[in-house]
Amino acid sequence: MSRVITLTTDFGTGDGYVASMKGVILGINPQATVVDISHSVEPQFIREASFLIHASWRYFPEGSIHIVVVDPGVGSHRRAVLLKTPSAYFITPDNGTLSYVLHELDEMQGSHNRSAPGQAASRAVPEGCEAVSITTKEYWRHPVSATFHGRDVFAPVAAHISLDIPITEFGDKLDSLTVFPIPIPFKDATGQTVGHIIHIDRFGNLVTNLRSRDIPPGGAAVEVKNQRIDNTSRYYSQGSGLMALIGGNDYLELSYRDGSAASILGARVGDTIKLFNQLSR
Amino acid sequence: MSRVITLTTDFGTGDGYVASMKGVILGINPQATVVDISHSVEPQFIREASFLIHASWRYFPEGSIHIVVVDPGVGSHRRAVLLKTPSAYFITPDNGTLSYVLHELDEMQGSHNRSAPGQAASRAVPEGCEAVSITTKEYWRHPVSATFHGRDVFAPVAAHISLDIPITEFGDKLDSLTVFPIPIPFKDATGQTVGHIIHIDRFGNLVTNLRSRDIPPGGAAVEVKNQRIDNTSRYYSQGSGLMALIGGNDYLELSYRDGSAASILGARVGDTIKLFNQLSR
Amino acid sequence: MSRVITLTTDFGTGDGYVASMKGVILGINPQATVVDISHSVEPQFIREASFLIHASWRYFPEGSIHIVVVDPGVGSHRRAVLLKTPSAYFITPDNGTLSYVLHELDEMQGSHNRSAPGQAASRAVPEGCEAVSITTKEYWRHPVSATFHGRDVFAPVAAHISLDIPITEFGDKLDSLTVFPIPIPFKDATGQTVGHIIHIDRFGNLVTNLRSRDIPPGGAAVEVKNQRIDNTSRYYSQGSGLMALIGGNDYLELSYRDGSAASILGARVGDTIKLFNQLSR
Repeated sequence: MSRVITLTTDFGTGDGYVASMKGVILGINPQATVVDISHSVEPQFIREASFLIHASWRYFPEGSIHIVVVDPGVGSHRRAVLLKTPSAYFITPDNGTLSYVLHELDEMQGSHNRSAPGQAASRAVPEGCEAVSITTKEYWRHPVSATFHGRDVFAPVAAHISLDIPITEFGDKLDSLTVFPIPIPFKDATGQTVGHIIHIDRFGNLVTNLRSRDIPPGGAAVEVKNQRIDNTSRYYSQGSGLMALIGGNDYLELSYRDGSAASILGARVGDTIKLFNQLSR
Repeated sequence: MSRVITLTTDFGTGDGYVASMKGVILGINPQATVVDISHSVEPQFIREASFLIHASWRYFPEGSIHIVVVDPGVGSHRRAVLLKTPSAYFITPDNGTLSYVLHELDEMQGSHNRSAPGQAASRAVPEGCEAVSITTKEYWRHPVSATFHGRDVFAPVAAHISLDIPITEFGDKLDSLTVFPIPIPFKDATGQTVGHIIHIDRFGNLVTNLRSRDIPPGGAAVEVKNQRIDNTSRYYSQGSGLMALIGGNDYLELSYRDGSAASILGARVGDTIKLFNQLSR
Repeated sequence: MSRVITLTTDFGTGDGYVASMKGVILGINPQATVVDISHSVEPQFIREASFLIHASWRYFPEGSIHIVVVDPGVGSHRRAVLLKTPSAYFITPDNGTLSYVLHELDEMQGSHNRSAPGQAASRAVPEGCEAVSITTKEYWRHPVSATFHGRDVFAPVAAHISLDIPITEFGDKLDSLTVFPIPIPFKDATGQTVGHIIHIDRFGNLVTNLRSRDIPPGGAAVEVKNQRIDNTSRYYSQGSGLMALIGGNDYLELSYRDGSAASILGARVGDTIKLFNQLSR
């Protein structure tokens, strides 16, 4: 069966860990096409992995299988889970890596299953989706290493799913999954919309959680790290200096022409950004 | 259809951008084989991308499709173009990324379609090749992001070409393409051949635009950054210290045994290198 | 023929060298699946390449073909070799890159074909394996560059093997291969087991040459760089601070929870590590 399996990890590409996962997959399904999403997630930074799979999965063919392994709890009692949505499969430790994807599924359904701010917590599996706890050892690679479930659990389970084995074969049904609270834009006391920087890319672009729908019809000014940007641009080459524009995933991005907005502003993931109605200034 | 599609970008491999392009390609042609040439082009350094695709494309099977996206002008009025040569397809913003490939095609045809030194300029499409402006939106991914044509224009166009859709379907025929002037070796006042460093690789090897045909039959001495190398070697392990030898693409390279010639010489892309007839010293 | 070909090199992924190898392979066998093991081997560090292919090859399907090119002697008289084992093929310069794999084959056969400590030396091809010197130019890419045998010799030979051409076609049979002496654990004067750090991974984990079989039934304490770890853990999240645990390849690893053991200990490949019987303290 020709099927796409993607990999998102913090393993790097220098130690052969990712290659071992691919070897295991190809041994089970030689027809699988394995695609790397990223292996340079900062070690054990679950939130970055969660953002990356959220930002990438929808561009893959229907039925693609996404393995996400950033797994500080490997070998402990954290669960391994499999989530089937209407258009994709996700296989991952149950440690919050699916937070952004689950939030996105809620939005698509117009639901508001927001986790409370604070610690990681449990939330219901969205309607139309199924989740199972990966416990059926028959589909694992043996002996199972206590430190490398990516190779011995997640990779072989993904490969077996690509052979159309029903997901209920892999373990018992789950009603809930672990998520961390993801930052949600809000209105401040003066009625202005406040968002957050949720990702910084290779170019130093600051990706925020504000969307095109958050921009008022008359345009918006943006304030970030005490700098003000007076109008949003449609694309990179239009502006000069610091720019705000809608990026490839419909998120508002802050960009610096021929430079890194992140370095120039000293900005980090989690910093806030404020939108001003362009006309109200 | 089993076809090779290659990718050369400045996107890095950490942000999921390249993965999104692969997802789009595989959604259109699940049989495509996607190969990365490089994603670590220095952000927006068109010349490096142009060199890399020139140095790599000829090793791929006939009919391979090469996407090159280093695109500071994304979203603006710069054209997107498709070039069909007798043995390959190139898909790229029309910003000079094809300069080295077009020069190479001229050389293969014995023609001398040299752009004048100075700014980027327009030049004729070589004989035996066809070019089109990519304008037919039917083959794009929608909605088209103003900032990520790699995913929404170049990737789906490449995938459709891999399904043998005729190139005239993608837009109107073009007579000319944009190139930047590439450095050409010349003779100085004393009759010595002067070339340029055009690429520096991971090992610190300095790749120049001098070829084996430029080396006089009696051998040559080389002068670079006020250092002189008295004879060219046939391979790396033959020499010691600084060496000049013919590299894998028939370009003269300067190399330092067990070290980086680039660091030791403080050399950069664009620096000149002078050849002396070995016997004339 | 659908077959897996893996690549382990020190070429990096930025210069198109690896891509050229893939292009050559796909031109000969369009059905080959090429997988990267690592291209970030420290330039010309044969031992690291040798460890990486040893740590990865066994996870690939039977009959996979592994190219390993870390090749300071390219173009000189060093041999190019092809080793066929009962379950895989290895193609590489004969410069020691197979040292760990050959040691592993010895262990699987219960044999003790240890090279003497000191310089690289010749050793017999293990029983059940065949080796040939790659000399039949018919299967190479021409013209053969003196500096890039990865593209012109190793890649096309691997691709032809993937088409089931018998290995004896590629050159004359060899009785011996070059190896460097790999570090072997030993007992010191007080009867304690002493091992070595043989690899440091992206997380700063120190991989040693001690195995689970070396750990006494009552558990073990570990001493490394004058630090003592009092008990081995089963997995990363169990311990805190510095931990010793059995890693994914059955090697004892030293790890630091939420940090890099390598940085914290100032440890390097080659450093020793001592095991103490936990009960004997």
